[in-house]
Amino acid sequence: MSVLVVGSVAFDSIKTPFGERNRALGGSATFFSVAASFFTDVRVVAVVGEDFGAEEEAVFREREIDLSDLERIEGQPSFHWKGEYGYDLNVARTLDTQLNVFADFNPKLSDAARETPFLFLGNIQPQLQVEVRRQVAAKLVAADTMNYWIDNTRDDLIEMLKHIDILIINDSEARELAGEANLVRAARKILSMGPGRLVVKRGEYGAAMFTADTYFATPAYPLEDVFDPTGAGDSFAGGFMGYLAAADSTGEAAMRRAIIYGSVMASFNVEEFSCDRLRRLTHDEISARFRELRALSHFEEEELPRRRLLKEV
Amino acid sequence: MSVLVVGSVAFDSIKTPFGERNRALGGSATFFSVAASFFTDVRVVAVVGEDFGAEEEAVFREREIDLSDLERIEGQPSFHWKGEYGYDLNVARTLDTQLNVFADFNPKLSDAARETPFLFLGNIQPQLQVEVRRQVAAKLVAADTMNYWIDNTRDDLIEMLKHIDILIINDSEARELAGEANLVRAARKILSMGPGRLVVKRGEYGAAMFTADTYFATPAYPLEDVFDPTGAGDSFAGGFMGYLAAADSTGEAAMRRAIIYGSVMASFNVEEFSCDRLRRLTHDEISARFRELRALSHFEEEELPRRRLLKEV
Repeated sequence: MSVLVVGSVAFDSIKTPFGERNRALGGSATFFSVAASFFTDVRVVAVVGEDFGAEEEAVFREREIDLSDLERIEGQPSFHWKGEYGYDLNVARTLDTQLNVFADFNPKLSDAARETPFLFLGNIQPQLQVEVRRQVAAKLVAADTMNYWIDNTRDDLIEMLKHIDILIINDSEARELAGEANLVRAARKILSMGPGRLVVKRGEYGAAMFTADTYFATPAYPLEDVFDPTGAGDSFAGGFMGYLAAADSTGEAAMRRAIIYGSVMASFNVEEFSCDRLRRLTHDEISARFRELRALSHFEEEELPRRRLLKEV
Repeated sequence: MSVLVVGSVAFDSIKTPFGERNRALGGSATFFSVAASFFTDVRVVAVVGEDFGAEEEAVFREREIDLSDLERIEGQPSFHWKGEYGYDLNVARTLDTQLNVFADFNPKLSDAARETPFLFLGNIQPQLQVEVRRQVAAKLVAADTMNYWIDNTRDDLIEMLKHIDILIINDSEARELAGEANLVRAARKILSMGPGRLVVKRGEYGAAMFTADTYFATPAYPLEDVFDPTGAGDSFAGGFMGYLAAADSTGEAAMRRAIIYGSVMASFNVEEFSCDRLRRLTHDEISARFRELRALSHFEEEELPRRRLLKEV
């Protein structure tokens, strides 16, 4: 099965403690689609400006990602984000956001796009997410969001939650959305808002997944060098949805593997700027890291050594 | 095999968002020994004042914990800690610390204590930890510490690390001790200081374990109600060391199970004030939560769905 993603295709100017890069290809739809393309066919719905040239297009073309639904607007630049990270790589500081072509983005989907069975609504305005969702006859719909939408368009976001199957967000976003410090309680509250499944991304601590009656959690792949966290969440979502679409399954065992493939793709993505690491990634590398995550988190049961108190004997 | 613990037996006055309790039995040696007593015989080295009465003693007696090495000092009160937690239960705010009898604590061990094969050095002055360690012919020695000792007695702490097999500390303490924001790098640095194994407690995110060539991580047991986090780290250590002593093993598979038993004991301990929950805990409850942790973190492998690009076919 194939996947459709709607989101941003952007230029990022990024400074981390380890280096700096201007106008690198970024955006939620970019990271998502490159990651998902290792598993299945991907189609991108997004808008770019006239600065989106052959070099940027090649990143998608070389992964054979379908750009038929990529809208190009003349006379304007693409979305541009400028940010920096300190040594605590969990927190990005936004220095500048220029929406440009993205300000009037109004996704119009082709007939082929409307029939894609797996849909990912990247982190854009909740209202646009709903509009896209309504156009696609997907069998599984997942969405991301961020604190900006929780703060500024809460009603639209609550409405959006009624139209999706899976919400994939960060730890702090889950707590903020639910107004609950305890993640288990926050998850229960979010599940009551619409999505049947909640995936919580916890950065260096891994990921957790909740439904009304299941729970799964995994640690992250341990990395000594996190070079640039930009796109970690979207490459996670790309691995997650890409795997589910390829496996064409929505059962619990497949969902768990999807979480692991998401973690694997995110762990590779943060090793370099932009999609640089994903562009030269191989299936063997993905498989090896999947097996490593399994090996480092599994343990075997054995009879509990029960100390009997004398008074009990 | 039996376990010896040196640490504090104290009174805690605690305020959390959910309630308040004055002069509850606490202290690292208390939480450790009650947790470990479910797995094996435990002996406590600590000092108490004249306010340690029949009620407090009963907590140890009912778990058949050996108090032969508990020193009692007349005319002085026991160690008393007063603290509070906000809704972010990860951070305790100390309101008052009265060392009392603990100020001149100078552990003198009985002959029986000196022959205990498993030793846990609770969170006390590093110099005292070394003195106790020198008196015990243990085959496995683990220790805890805290930011106070990292800040104020760093040289003594570095010396202490040369005398132990396993260091069991918090996430933030590991980063502070190593001066490294990245936990994998921090772990490598700490392992180079002496201990062959590092266990990192991550609160609601679980625990991680490092040696020079192995890595293990587990999520925490998901709790909706964390009532009082006091003693979580010590009950974790009690489950960890208690299991290892009972299993009489220091192999990797046993170490992994020990991490899980530690997580299980901590997860029960935080459900109520003081040792209240541990006092009425059963082996069946421990086993059930161990199996739950396994079920919620395990996943099965399957052939990776490899999407071949047309250009590769």
